[in-house]
Amino acid sequence: MKQTIRKRFTTLAGVASLGLAATAMAVPAETLDEVMARRGLSQKDLLAAAKTYTPTGGRDEFIVFSSGGQSGQIMVYGVPSMRILKYVSVFTPEPWQGYGFDEESKAVLAGGIIDGRELTWGDTHHPALSETEGAPDGEFLFINDKSAPRVGVISLDDFETKQIVVNPILQSEHGGTFVTPNTEYVLEAAQYPGILGRGFAPLSDFNEKFRGAITYWKFNREKGRIEPENSFSIELPPYTQDLTDAGKLVSYGWSFTNSFCAERYVGGIESGRPPFEAGCSQADTDFLHIINWKKAEEVYKAGKVTMINDHPVISLETAVEEGLVYLVAEPKSPHGVDVSPDGKFIVVGGKLDVTASVYSFEKIQAAIEAKNFSGVDPYGLPIIKMEDALHVQVPLGLGPLHNQYDSKPCVIYTSLYVDSQIAKWDYCEGKVLDKISIHYNVGHLVAMEGESVKPAGHYLISLNKLAIDRFNPVGPLHPQNHQLIDITGDKMELLYDMPVPLGEPHYAAAIAADKLKPLVRYRYGTNSRTGGKHEGATRPGSERIERDGTTVNVYMTAIRSHFTPEIIEVNEGDTVNFIITNSERAEDETHGFSVSTYNVNLSLEPGKTSTASIVADKPGIFSFYCTEFCSALHLEMEGYLVIKPKGYVEEAAAVSEGQAYTQADYDKQVQTNVDTQAVIDSVVGYITARNYKDFPEVASLVEDAVDQLNFAADAKAKSEAAAAESDWQNATLWAGQWWQYQVKAADIGLRAKTYLDEHGAVVVE
Amino acid sequence: MKQTIRKRFTTLAGVASLGLAATAMAVPAETLDEVMARRGLSQKDLLAAAKTYTPTGGRDEFIVFSSGGQSGQIMVYGVPSMRILKYVSVFTPEPWQGYGFDEESKAVLAGGIIDGRELTWGDTHHPALSETEGAPDGEFLFINDKSAPRVGVISLDDFETKQIVVNPILQSEHGGTFVTPNTEYVLEAAQYPGILGRGFAPLSDFNEKFRGAITYWKFNREKGRIEPENSFSIELPPYTQDLTDAGKLVSYGWSFTNSFCAERYVGGIESGRPPFEAGCSQADTDFLHIINWKKAEEVYKAGKVTMINDHPVISLETAVEEGLVYLVAEPKSPHGVDVSPDGKFIVVGGKLDVTASVYSFEKIQAAIEAKNFSGVDPYGLPIIKMEDALHVQVPLGLGPLHNQYDSKPCVIYTSLYVDSQIAKWDYCEGKVLDKISIHYNVGHLVAMEGESVKPAGHYLISLNKLAIDRFNPVGPLHPQNHQLIDITGDKMELLYDMPVPLGEPHYAAAIAADKLKPLVRYRYGTNSRTGGKHEGATRPGSERIERDGTTVNVYMTAIRSHFTPEIIEVNEGDTVNFIITNSERAEDETHGFSVSTYNVNLSLEPGKTSTASIVADKPGIFSFYCTEFCSALHLEMEGYLVIKPKGYVEEAAAVSEGQAYTQADYDKQVQTNVDTQAVIDSVVGYITARNYKDFPEVASLVEDAVDQLNFAADAKAKSEAAAAESDWQNATLWAGQWWQYQVKAADIGLRAKTYLDEHGAVVVE
Repeated sequence: MKQTIRKRFTTLAGVASLGLAATAMAVPAETLDEVMARRGLSQKDLLAAAKTYTPTGGRDEFIVFSSGGQSGQIMVYGVPSMRILKYVSVFTPEPWQGYGFDEESKAVLAGGIIDGRELTWGDTHHPALSETEGAPDGEFLFINDKSAPRVGVISLDDFETKQIVVNPILQSEHGGTFVTPNTEYVLEAAQYPGILGRGFAPLSDFNEKFRGAITYWKFNREKGRIEPENSFSIELPPYTQDLTDAGKLVSYGWSFTNSFCAERYVGGIESGRPPFEAGCSQADTDFLHIINWKKAEEVYKAGKVTMINDHPVISLETAVEEGLVYLVAEPKSPHGVDVSPDGKFIVVGGKLDVTASVYSFEKIQAAIEAKNFSGVDPYGLPIIKMEDALHVQVPLGLGPLHNQYDSKPCVIYTSLYVDSQIAKWDYCEGKVLDKISIHYNVGHLVAMEGESVKPAGHYLISLNKLAIDRFNPVGPLHPQNHQLIDITGDKMELLYDMPVPLGEPHYAAAIAADKLKPLVRYRYGTNSRTGGKHEGATRPGSERIERDGTTVNVYMTAIRSHFTPEIIEVNEGDTVNFIITNSERAEDETHGFSVSTYNVNLSLEPGKTSTASIVADKPGIFSFYCTEFCSALHLEMEGYLVIKPKGYVEEAAAVSEGQAYTQADYDKQVQTNVDTQAVIDSVVGYITARNYKDFPEVASLVEDAVDQLNFAADAKAKSEAAAAESDWQNATLWAGQWWQYQVKAADIGLRAKTYLDEHGAVVVE
Repeated sequence: MKQTIRKRFTTLAGVASLGLAATAMAVPAETLDEVMARRGLSQKDLLAAAKTYTPTGGRDEFIVFSSGGQSGQIMVYGVPSMRILKYVSVFTPEPWQGYGFDEESKAVLAGGIIDGRELTWGDTHHPALSETEGAPDGEFLFINDKSAPRVGVISLDDFETKQIVVNPILQSEHGGTFVTPNTEYVLEAAQYPGILGRGFAPLSDFNEKFRGAITYWKFNREKGRIEPENSFSIELPPYTQDLTDAGKLVSYGWSFTNSFCAERYVGGIESGRPPFEAGCSQADTDFLHIINWKKAEEVYKAGKVTMINDHPVISLETAVEEGLVYLVAEPKSPHGVDVSPDGKFIVVGGKLDVTASVYSFEKIQAAIEAKNFSGVDPYGLPIIKMEDALHVQVPLGLGPLHNQYDSKPCVIYTSLYVDSQIAKWDYCEGKVLDKISIHYNVGHLVAMEGESVKPAGHYLISLNKLAIDRFNPVGPLHPQNHQLIDITGDKMELLYDMPVPLGEPHYAAAIAADKLKPLVRYRYGTNSRTGGKHEGATRPGSERIERDGTTVNVYMTAIRSHFTPEIIEVNEGDTVNFIITNSERAEDETHGFSVSTYNVNLSLEPGKTSTASIVADKPGIFSFYCTEFCSALHLEMEGYLVIKPKGYVEEAAAVSEGQAYTQADYDKQVQTNVDTQAVIDSVVGYITARNYKDFPEVASLVEDAVDQLNFAADAKAKSEAAAAESDWQNATLWAGQWWQYQVKAADIGLRAKTYLDEHGAVVVE
């Protein structure tokens, strides 16, 4: 067979021979009209197809980061193709990414332990992109957890979660995350009222002892981490706070938090009381909280705080004294509170109302300055009269929920939950411009950079809560339906229905794709969760096994297609740390690592160092292997962990050889290698004869191929050394290894050649 | 505001008023040519777009079940739209599905505990659809775990995992799952040799004591479960078995398992030995195992077995004696072994070769009958000469890996890993018909029902292992790339690139969409993991809290938009079981359930009963809430778990009321409700005036709306009873609840109305 493959390699240089003799074209190709007729597509459908279809190798214009809801993840997809590019785990362990399976990410998850309880999921709601001067900058992403009051920090360098922080005072949250215009703070507001600090009080003390709050998490951009030690909170009344938005430009320094159940109702259907849903929806309005965070920061820095669980909290009393928080009525049970791009207006819809209310920041400030209040709430907070704060109120339809801004001046989009529609309207003039039906029951919306000081327009996505009949049935649990809408024209046009296969997204954030500059590979030996050099990073040649008592540290490397070491002997009861560095440089050349039945998996991208730790509690022979299909010899990228039983006495014995090789085997292999090298040289000639340096992708492939050929040279030297001692066994096998490196180089060379052919490379002089 | 919403409802009946005054069409719509120019689309791209784009509500022709690799899940997507419809968790807990978070699914995962070790992930490789007479029947799906020798069973009724079984003898596997033509057995073959029964032996005893094996898991279709007690295995030599396929039609009763590293090489690069990859790729050929499973079943039933870990194993010695296993050489390091639709041929490619080998079952049988062997292997198994078994051998290119069959006679597709190509060829005549380049390094292929006795043709998907430059960059860890190829014509045509956002699929199985008949909802009170009635199923009105020592069982219901009960008091240290039944009937009306900071989440689809268990180890007030956005009052679907501290003495105190209501509030609410009812009646009139019964989706919505109106009547009665006693607080709140049910009915009514409008309903006499 090797003979055949050699022949194959030999003909490789004659590129034309790769082509086939033309086959008879017996089946006539289907025309566009025939395809449209067969699939029932209208001209409008075809236009939508052309606006969204992205051919192989094409790029999306925008990238959407969507919460995964109770999946505890972030879903990343491209617009307009609506193809999901990645799920990034934040609060939920996920083995493909090694998240929660390697020791480095376990340290991140450990940051999310709450009251001593380890959590293995989260309910992610509102992702926020880091901002510079009020526009997303593509550096970081934040996301909250409603099931436990926590915030996660993701770096967009590598799309990995770097930090989880636990809110020190809240028992429940929902109103996170939102950032101030330069990401000075990441905002997280309470949801269901509780005892600040997570203490106990009976429900009969609800009005007196239960509270809400909003936390301003300080973000250190240079470190890429939230600093709990520089963060503070403001106590709020038990109004069930909901979402928040930060002021910008003229309203910079302020933030706005809405609420529902301002009735402060406590249900009890089991004892004959009307349920929460009745008592929390009875009044006509709720309260929008208007907060001067810049001033609150000064108050906090001046030490006018109460410490709860070592966390500084500005009390309601201080907030009143210092004039930090004001209230204004807002339409019932709102969700979105969205500051306009110029910072002048705050738009709030009420899910149990039909109007959207546009508040004027200028009018709010005038009322505050003039102390023109209708009174104070039961907690002493001044209440601004709604009519003094409103710019305009616009009836939109049933269940206005969330708003996003267009690049066109004064144009805003509002989701209508009950109507299953989206309204496009003018928030300056207060008039409705267009409506479109969606399928079904839209929650949040996301427009491209739709919360920025400079929205990008183009597309709007309707994040529908129900799909019902939109897709092929997959059982009682349905996907969600994200619908892409073209907003470039006067009329909104539906372009695409995207099923969400995992999780139940709430909100999403979108950014122009060219603002993202993710890494291709890590600096050699990086601990990706800290960003620094891993203390266990190992270079090829320095691999070793170190024992310290019953702890065995195995410093390993991984490269196509072997681990070093590949036989590891330990004793029953040892703790074994496999600290592995992927020594590849090639893009996308990831390796995995698993030890059979021992519940570990690593995702080792090029340059990364990760640790798999196990307690070798069961003696036996356990294979380990690369879990990521990395190369033609991927299945052969294996090894054995030998866990010797307690009291086992080893007999000196050589490894048994299954097959013996002779000088003839060696000679045959060497001849194959020599022939193969001639072919590789011709491929190299093909590539270097062309302007390959103009294609960074190819230059990178060539670099990788050179690496492989250097490895081949090393194996060749070992083979020749063994042959010199007539050790035909090792001479043959090392010659085989030499050939394997040649095959890897050829694999890369073929990819490079194809790339050049497909991208119009030309022969250079 | 209610006034406004009432007005809104009032105008609802005049449907035309929902429309907008036409806006000025200032922005001219982009033409198809303009879109193509802007996006750089060719005519070929447009054709591909038309062949794949699926407008809202459209259906896919085929459904693909792809392994998720090390994500431990199954990914389900539609063809030709290539939209991912669902991830189904099998070996890895996943909170959105409640999998591993509710007690019912924890019981399934507990079946996968191996040697006392709880595993929280799996490395899924090869899904297999249940078959009837050699064709997929759409009832069940099976999937293996390479990281620990296990098999999962998924029901396609509800796309949920029902069972995990642990292989009693293997330490490593890879060659699963494959089914016999009537799903009599699910096949699982070993990978890296080990000690059968997972014992210990030194590697120096590799040839003597290490073994492979293949397990035939008996499947009981009626119960939908594997029966370990009726399953058996066959011991095999330590040849590192790989994939398997079952014979069909003429080859029914036989199965075929290939292998790599038939050299039986043990590496040791750390001690100067050549690595596994060299020693396992040195020989020219490996061994295809040809197994008479029908006869093995008789041998097993006759009791000619050795029991290992209480599992019956046919020893190599018995296999030789009884003539159960034969070997034949196969091209080096093969992956796929694929029986032709007529059962006459077995096609094997070698990743380290350039040829695909077509074996003739007839020739193999002739050799066996004539005892025409070249000898026996070191374990006594007869070896058939390759030339006596081969029908034809065809050079295809570098790295033939896996094969799929077309609906056209004799046409087969083979992936070429190193060449990054797919070859279409004729396995009867042995000639290559076409080739197409893919991006990059294809592993498995899947054609539509491409392993059936009657392949469906149409489409082929290339499951590429590397994406490299195909998509927008998302950091060092790239998505995989599944490429859809049109195979209807003579030339293969690339249609679509689909990024795989989570996991690293290996193999996939595709089935015609109309063969799947999943459930829309569960029978009331179903334990979905057993399929039977849940012993804790609770009807509305029967909700209760039962204490048994320190165990508190809360029998709950969930419906838009409240839980019953909603205030639950327990003592510190209690074990609390929330046993919740979703009492909805509406399609897609799923509820979730989480208790803040207590690490539980349920996914409650209509009719399902699930249990969230916690140990109330920290006193305090913990909100619980619906984690699935279910309705306009979803956020209000909340409650409190009150965990009283040890020694806490309760003072008798009423729940504090935040807001008081008067008779005037009651009267105002009732007036709103009366007006709303008039509007609902008009919507009902609009629907019933049309042929809505012709639309099953609408009939179902109407059924749901009637439910809501019945609930409204119930709340109305409670409101009137309270009013009769001048209890204006409860009278007002129950009147509010009555109105909330009206809003839910209106929500559904609007969806029904939209559906009728969009689907051409007509007025009936």
